Amino acid sequence: MRADYQPLRPQKPLLVNRDSETPPASFKIKDVTIGDGSPVIIAGPCSIESADQIDKIARFISRSGAKILRGGAFKPRTSPYSFQGLREEGLTLFSEIAERYNLVTITEVPDTNKVDLVYQYTDIFQVGSRNMQNFELLKAIGETDKHVLLKRGFMSTLEELLLAAEHIASKGNERIILCERGIRTFEKWTRNTLDISAVPILKNTSRLPVIVDISHSTGRRDIALPIARASLAAGADGLMIEVHNNPDAALSDSRQQLSFDQFSELMQGIEPFLKQARQN
Amino acid sequence: MRADYQPLRPQKPLLVNRDSETPPASFKIKDVTIGDGSPVIIAGPCSIESADQIDKIARFISRSGAKILRGGAFKPRTSPYSFQGLREEGLTLFSEIAERYNLVTITEVPDTNKVDLVYQYTDIFQVGSRNMQNFELLKAIGETDKHVLLKRGFMSTLEELLLAAEHIASKGNERIILCERGIRTFEKWTRNTLDISAVPILKNTSRLPVIVDISHSTGRRDIALPIARASLAAGADGLMIEVHNNPDAALSDSRQQLSFDQFSELMQGIEPFLKQARQN
Amino acid sequence: MRADYQPLRPQKPLLVNRDSETPPASFKIKDVTIGDGSPVIIAGPCSIESADQIDKIARFISRSGAKILRGGAFKPRTSPYSFQGLREEGLTLFSEIAERYNLVTITEVPDTNKVDLVYQYTDIFQVGSRNMQNFELLKAIGETDKHVLLKRGFMSTLEELLLAAEHIASKGNERIILCERGIRTFEKWTRNTLDISAVPILKNTSRLPVIVDISHSTGRRDIALPIARASLAAGADGLMIEVHNNPDAALSDSRQQLSFDQFSELMQGIEPFLKQARQN
Amino acid sequence: MRADYQPLRPQKPLLVNRDSETPPASFKIKDVTIGDGSPVIIAGPCSIESADQIDKIARFISRSGAKILRGGAFKPRTSPYSFQGLREEGLTLFSEIAERYNLVTITEVPDTNKVDLVYQYTDIFQVGSRNMQNFELLKAIGETDKHVLLKRGFMSTLEELLLAAEHIASKGNERIILCERGIRTFEKWTRNTLDISAVPILKNTSRLPVIVDISHSTGRRDIALPIARASLAAGADGLMIEVHNNPDAALSDSRQQLSFDQFSELMQGIEPFLKQARQN
Repeated sequence: MRADYQPLRPQKPLLVNRDSETPPASFKIKDVTIGDGSPVIIAGPCSIESADQIDKIARFISRSGAKILRGGAFKPRTSPYSFQGLREEGLTLFSEIAERYNLVTITEVPDTNKVDLVYQYTDIFQVGSRNMQNFELLKAIGETDKHVLLKRGFMSTLEELLLAAEHIASKGNERIILCERGIRTFEKWTRNTLDISAVPILKNTSRLPVIVDISHSTGRRDIALPIARASLAAGADGLMIEVHNNPDAALSDSRQQLSFDQFSELMQGIEPFLKQARQN
Repeated sequence: MRADYQPLRPQKPLLVNRDSETPPASFKIKDVTIGDGSPVIIAGPCSIESADQIDKIARFISRSGAKILRGGAFKPRTSPYSFQGLREEGLTLFSEIAERYNLVTITEVPDTNKVDLVYQYTDIFQVGSRNMQNFELLKAIGETDKHVLLKRGFMSTLEELLLAAEHIASKGNERIILCERGIRTFEKWTRNTLDISAVPILKNTSRLPVIVDISHSTGRRDIALPIARASLAAGADGLMIEVHNNPDAALSDSRQQLSFDQFSELMQGIEPFLKQARQN
Repeated sequence: MRADYQPLRPQKPLLVNRDSETPPASFKIKDVTIGDGSPVIIAGPCSIESADQIDKIARFISRSGAKILRGGAFKPRTSPYSFQGLREEGLTLFSEIAERYNLVTITEVPDTNKVDLVYQYTDIFQVGSRNMQNFELLKAIGETDKHVLLKRGFMSTLEELLLAAEHIASKGNERIILCERGIRTFEKWTRNTLDISAVPILKNTSRLPVIVDISHSTGRRDIALPIARASLAAGADGLMIEVHNNPDAALSDSRQQLSFDQFSELMQGIEPFLKQARQN
Repeated sequence: MRADYQPLRPQKPLLVNRDSETPPASFKIKDVTIGDGSPVIIAGPCSIESADQIDKIARFISRSGAKILRGGAFKPRTSPYSFQGLREEGLTLFSEIAERYNLVTITEVPDTNKVDLVYQYTDIFQVGSRNMQNFELLKAIGETDKHVLLKRGFMSTLEELLLAAEHIASKGNERIILCERGIRTFEKWTRNTLDISAVPILKNTSRLPVIVDISHSTGRRDIALPIARASLAAGADGLMIEVHNNPDAALSDSRQQLSFDQFSELMQGIEPFLKQARQN
């Protein structure tokens, strides 16, 4: 079958694109492999809030089968008067506790001047949705050797996402993981509209692994399970999920984080999809 | 888990909504049941073009496991100079040939003044995306006893879709099937953006079956299979798929219709999802 | 200066388009001319509610300089349980009272089966935003000799608007007035986003007059005056404005209708733009 | 008249908001005042390309009545393989030549690590649309004493724009000018959709001056004049316009930059609006 819509017609072949000579990429980070056909689960709180909070969450998700711990130390917030994150203190906690449970870590690097700092504390950089076209940041990350998860801008096209990835790759770092996290539309019953078609299109066009952030895309706990199943059925290499020991008391995004019970239920519900993939 | 975004707060409880006393609806139409947990496949050409074309397609899809034949006799076209459909002649062909292969039929009713005519020829009315808020048409259909598949407007919210369904139900006809078919966004690599979250939200909120039109939503043959799998994994009660004996020569939507080989491949690829559902 | 974006490339030259041989159209309807460079004001309530209401409003707006009375008898409403309009009774009132004040009338025709009825009562048909691609209705209107104001669908591109106009023109009726009324976007502080660029683009591309509906586009009384001024400065041939004798008690769209005082203030504020145009 | 849609309900009164005690701000920068009721014209090329180019353009626009010279030295480009700007060399040229013609300067600061550098060369910082929610950059600028023009993100609501301004103000710098530059929608005949309603809403809600970028918003030279007139009629405190001595040979955005003749024509066409404002 062939694509019918505007294909990517770059001025030169993109490094991030798939062709006969560049097979799909998979990355081994400590004990975890992303992009080998067996989906990975990235879980954790929206924000790093305290040692106790991170320890509880890290222990719980590692027992439930998640391999990668997420959590934000620098929180980009719409209002300057909202909680801005624990910053370096948060990074230290995060890194120590993840090691305790043998979890790979991912956290957001908010700015070029934080690249060196965050580099020391995390296994994977995250570039947030609002920074997808922060080209100075992309280039700075491109000059490191660290894996990076690049979130799609919530108002960016797939072409723009691939060109943002190319900004990183063109500086020498091709350890890039793409992340669909929903786009801004007129629909009001979800926080964003998850663009499920992005998964197979990105998989077909680029050679990079593709993760779906099921929390920011919909902003709704009540449909987390069917959306997780749909994402895996569409071919995603993994899911990113917000989990909190006490969602209602969370300092950010309290409405979309799953409780421990909800996360267990979700992990059970997607088990057939994880197994199936392993057998393929 | 609970919904976190704007719930539907109608002035009165909606007939189409789910509550403890009104369980999910399922409809038996001839030999086919929609909404009983076993997904149905609706397939056929965009437009009815000739007896020969319909016969070939009907025979093929019925052997492949589709139960319902789609095809348009009145084509709403953006330009007045595009093919407008075979109209009543098309309806006659359509109805006769479907019967030959024991297929249930669905076709679009474009206007109030065609309700009586189309009523005689089809098992299920289709209300097209551009007509979702054609309230006079909705009311006219609400006064019949025929099943109707109501397509979401490509720029309509889920709340507006449910209220459009309520326009039909409020006149006495509750035999309504909802259809997600993609919404208009800024993304250019798909014809529309399939709103996969619509499936679980509509299933949770209303008591009506939900179908996903995988052809109009993405407009791309090359991702038909992963999108079909994702739709079923999200809980859809069925899929609507455009199939043509010779897509490149089709009189409308030639770029998104599947060939017979592509349709066979797709039916094989979703087989595990159809089986799984039957076992639940 | 030349257009840089996607020009309209129809299969054949459109009747509604401007070219060297078809100058801009202007229409004389009773004493009022639309499209001659002197902007017209169309004012009135969202819905026709009673003889008393229409009489008060018609008298007031005619004294303030409006030449055309608007008012809906068939109201397309998102919910079936909202006020649906006075229907034929409303048309009778509307027509009689407008005559009393020598006002030209415009009212919505909601469906093909109401074309003959509404024809008898109004000087100008209105096709509502939700009906812009109701092609059966467009064709039915195209077979009459009555002027028609075609509202842009809130989900429609300018190309689709011109092709909708062409559906009418292709049946023989070229007495078409285009209306920009805002499009649906992610912005939440206005009801819709007024696409001001539509005015000069439509004026340059087509030969039809262009009106701006300042009420539905923004949904905000507090910016009615600057938006009215901007629309005239952009080259609009007129404005459509909702006015009500008691906005807070209106049966529909109460939040966006102007009171008499607000309408007077607005008419004063745009006076320089009306004069200026007359002198050109 | 009162606002009817979602008002801004911040956790605390915003510094950037208007109230009885904080009148509208106006800023005097060298000989130019922004926000005093007399609109200013900001003009210049998309990118600084050479001394010769900048000299020609600066001389021309200063004679035509523009007071502020724009030009980019660091160009954020969707593709890493497009022209990226002359960087520091460009800033030096820009600053020297502007002084020659007594023009105030504005140029984009692309990243926190460029704030100190750009500070030395420009009178006004520009924060680009893609950086509107680059909160680290906003805070860094907030710690300087330099004026800043903050462009609305093409994906951002007006509420988000005001909160981005608040990020700057909360660090002590209230010398902020807002800029509407179009938002991303489904319409394809313009590069973006200019949200003209943003002008009066921002003027009513905040106490900051509001500029309209007529080049990026529409991306079309052919409607520059009516859009400029509409923006001023809506109450804008100024216009930003791309002008190039040879648009077709420009290294970026060649399709939307005005030639000298086109710019002269535009300045003549808006003359009545500039005068009118001065008299008020």
